Formats: sequence, C-alpha cells, structure tokens
Amino acid sequence: MEENSRPLDTLNAARNKTVMVDLKNGYRYVGKLKAFDIHINVVLSDADEHHNGDVKRKLGNVFIRGDTITIISPA
Amino acid sequence: MEENSRPLDTLNAARNKTVMVDLKNGYRYVGKLKAFDIHINVVLSDADEHHNGDVKRKLGNVFIRGDTITIISPA
Amino acid sequence: MEENSRPLDTLNAARNKTVMVDLKNGYRYVGKLKAFDIHINVVLSDADEHHNGDVKRKLGNVFIRGDTITIISPA
Amino acid sequence: MEENSRPLDTLNAARNKTVMVDLKNGYRYVGKLKAFDIHINVVLSDADEHHNGDVKRKLGNVFIRGDTITIISPA
Amino acid sequence: MEENSRPLDTLNAARNKTVMVDLKNGYRYVGKLKAFDIHINVVLSDADEHHNGDVKRKLGNVFIRGDTITIISPA
Amino acid sequence: MEENSRPLDTLNAARNKTVMVDLKNGYRYVGKLKAFDIHINVVLSDADEHHNGDVKRKLGNVFIRGDTITIISPA
Amino acid sequence: MEENSRPLDTLNAARNKTVMVDLKNGYRYVGKLKAFDIHINVVLSDADEHHNGDVKRKLGNVFIRGDTITIISPA
Repeated sequence: MEENSRPLDTLNAARNKTVMVDLKNGYRYVGKLKAFDIHINVVLSDADEHHNGDVKRKLGNVFIRGDTITIISPA
Repeated sequence: MEENSRPLDTLNAARNKTVMVDLKNGYRYVGKLKAFDIHINVVLSDADEHHNGDVKRKLGNVFIRGDTITIISPA
Repeated sequence: MEENSRPLDTLNAARNKTVMVDLKNGYRYVGKLKAFDIHINVVLSDADEHHNGDVKRKLGNVFIRGDTITIISPA
Repeated sequence: MEENSRPLDTLNAARNKTVMVDLKNGYRYVGKLKAFDIHINVVLSDADEHHNGDVKRKLGNVFIRGDTITIISPA
Repeated sequence: MEENSRPLDTLNAARNKTVMVDLKNGYRYVGKLKAFDIHINVVLSDADEHHNGDVKRKLGNVFIRGDTITIISPA
Repeated sequence: MEENSRPLDTLNAARNKTVMVDLKNGYRYVGKLKAFDIHINVVLSDADEHHNGDVKRKLGNVFIRGDTITIISPA
Repeated sequence: MEENSRPLDTLNAARNKTVMVDLKNGYRYVGKLKAFDIHINVVLSDADEHHNGDVKRKLGNVFIRGDTITIISPA
C-alpha cells in the first residue's frame, strides 16, 4: 500500500496485492485484495481464514462486510 | 464468485450458487444465494444452519439481516 | 417465502404466513408475518416467544425492532 | 395492537393501551403507550420497570430510546 | 413529563425538571434537564452520578451522549 | 459549562475549560476542551488518561472519537 | 497535534507525525499519520501493533476503520 492523502486511495493502491484483514471477532483473512467500497466492504481472492494463529480454512473468494473490520494491512 | 472491481458485483456473480454466510454470533448459514441488497441483507434458499461445526436446522428459505453478517464465501 | 431478486420481495411473499424471527439476544419469535418495513422492523400476530428451546410466553401481536434481528425464516 | 400493513401503523393502533417494552439489557417496561416516533423512541405513562421477573420501580412517565428496544407487545 | 403525542414533546415538557437518565453501561445520572436534541444528547445541571445504588460523584453540569442512553424518567 | 437550550451550546461554553470525558470502555480523559463537532468528536489538550481511578498516561493533545463517549463534564 | 477549533483540523495538523491510535478491542497502533477521512478511517505508515504493553507485529502501512477507534494521540 502506497502512501496517499485519503485512506481509500491507500486501499486502491493495494488492489491485487496480498493483504491481511482483521475482524472485530478476532478472525483474520489473508488474500489478494480484489474489490472494496466506501463502506470498506472488501473482496479477497485466494483467501485463508486465520484464528488464534492457525489457518482454519481455505476460502477462495470471500466478501467481508465493512463494519466488522478493524484493520487492513499488507500481509 | 468471480473477481470484480466492486464488492457487490462479486455478490451478483454468486447468485444461484451455494454460499456460506457467517454471522457475528457464530452461526453459519449455507444455501443458494437468491437475493441481496446494498445493506447486504441476503436471502438464501435450501439453507442449513450450522453452529459449532454441526448442522442445527434445515431452514429452506432464510432472510439474513445484513448488519449481522461478517463474511460471505462460496461453500 | 418465494424466491425473488430483492430480499424485501422475499419478506413480502411471506406476509400472512408463519415465520420464525431470531434475535441477536438469542430469543426467537414465531408467528404470522403481518408487517415489515425497510429497517426490517417486523410485526407478528399470534406470536410465541422461545428461548433455549422452550416457549416462554404467548404474546399475540408483537413489534420487533429490525436492528435486533439476525434471521427470518418460514417456521 | 391491530394488524396493519406497516409496523408503525401497529404501534399507532396501540396508543393509550398498555404495552410491554423489552430492552436489549434485559429490562422490561410496562405502561400505557403515549408516544413514539420513526426511531421507535417511545414514551410510556404509568410505567413499571421489571427485571428478572420482579417489579423494580414505579416510574410514572418514561422515555425509552428506540435503539435499546428489542420488542413491543401488548401486556 | 406531561403526556404528548411525540416523544421529544415529552422531553420538552421535562425541561428544568429533575430527571433520571439511565445508560447502557449501568450508570445513572440524576439532575435538572437543561437541554436535549434529536439524537437525545442531553445536558443535566446539578447532576449526581449513581452506580449500583450509590451516589458516586457530584458532577454539576453533564453532557450525556444520546446513543448511550436507555431511558429518561422523572426522578 | 453554562446552561443553554441545546446540548452543543453547552459544549461550546466549555471551550478552553478543563473537562472530564468518560468512554464506554471505562477510560476517562481529563484535559482542556479545544474542539468538538456534531458527532461529538472531541479534542482535549494537556490530557491525562485515567483508568480504575489511576492516571495511566499523560497524553498532551488527544482526539476522542465521539461514538465512544458516554459523558462530558467539568473536571 | 496543534490546537484548532475543529477536531479534524487537529488530525490534519498531525499528518506525517507519529501518532498512537487506540482501538475498542484494546489494540494500539503506533505509526506516522498518512491519511484520514471524515469517518476517521486512518492510514498509518511504519506502524507497530501493540497489545497488553507488547509490540506484537511490525505492519508497515495499515488502514484502520474509523468506527473501531477510541482515541488518536501523539506518540
């Protein structure tokens, strides 16, 4: 993610790159950032679900509802 | 779910396919995606309710309120 | 509930049929769907309140605030 | 509460009748429905506060903020 | 608080009278109602903070954010 | 904070005075009120962070997100 | 962060300076403030994740969703 003046520019610069998405419930999803919108709804491809440090599932594509997200960061 | 540039395009591509919907309360619903809207309210058909790894109920159609959803993914 | 392309169409098709409404707090209300709106505020008639698998109360009509609902499904 | 096609019509029909209002925090208020608005903010008169099956306080008039309400039902 | 047809009319009638404001976190504030707005943000004067049945602090004026409030009632 | 008819007038009257800001998570910030907006986002200067009755940190300036605040009161 | 009359002016004055961002879930992120918006979505660069007093991870850039933030303060 490059540095930009607006937060969504930063997400835009991360398209097609691998990111880590942490949720309020403690789950983490790691995958390629394919899409997002102003609500921070996010779609990852080739995503893994992590919990308590373990990979729980391989999910392929996953739609993550924005209001459940805490942070998004390069993996 | 195909890769698209907006998250809702991705849900649209999943219509009539089997998806898994995880809720904030730990319940999971698996069924065919019949409808959704911008609030991510979702309708599944032929849906099963899962909790703690078990199928709890067969529900047929189910309307899921968007703000209770964490992720939607192909089953 | 018939299958429709928008989630609220699905609720509309369920009018005057018996539905099960699950809340975030673990309570369930089973009754005839009389009314709903875009916030998913719902009115049931002839409603029973269930908790932990037991019928707790017979309520007659009940107004349920939408933001407390997780799912609505045919009973 | 009579049966109507919109949820707020149902509340309107309950004006000046005794209703039970359950909150997300487990408290219940029973009193005469004097007023409500689209946020489901509610005013009861001659209200009692119930908790764990006991009447805790006699409150007279009480304003209840809508977003704390789960259900409203005839007492 | 007099009986009125809209909930905010009821709050308006309580201006300069002593009210009890209960919060979602279990705290209670008792003081004179000086101001409120449509979000139910409230200002009390000569306010006491109560918790678990005890007066914890004398606060003088206090601004209470509306979304943290459950009920407002005459003291 | 002087008494005014709208809650934000009350906050306005408290500018450059020392206030106590309590959060939903139990933390308290005490400092000089420098800025606020309609969301009740607040900026304090010369702020101390309190928790369980102890001063945890001296923070200087602090931006507090409005939706995490329960009350604001003169210190 | 300099003192300004609106909270977002204060965040603006902190651009490119090191800030501490505390979340509702107890995590803290410390990094250089690169971007923010009116929802208080924030981007930090060179960010560390702290929890229970320890640095848990070095994250580089991190996007933090605004509604999960409690406070932002100079580090």
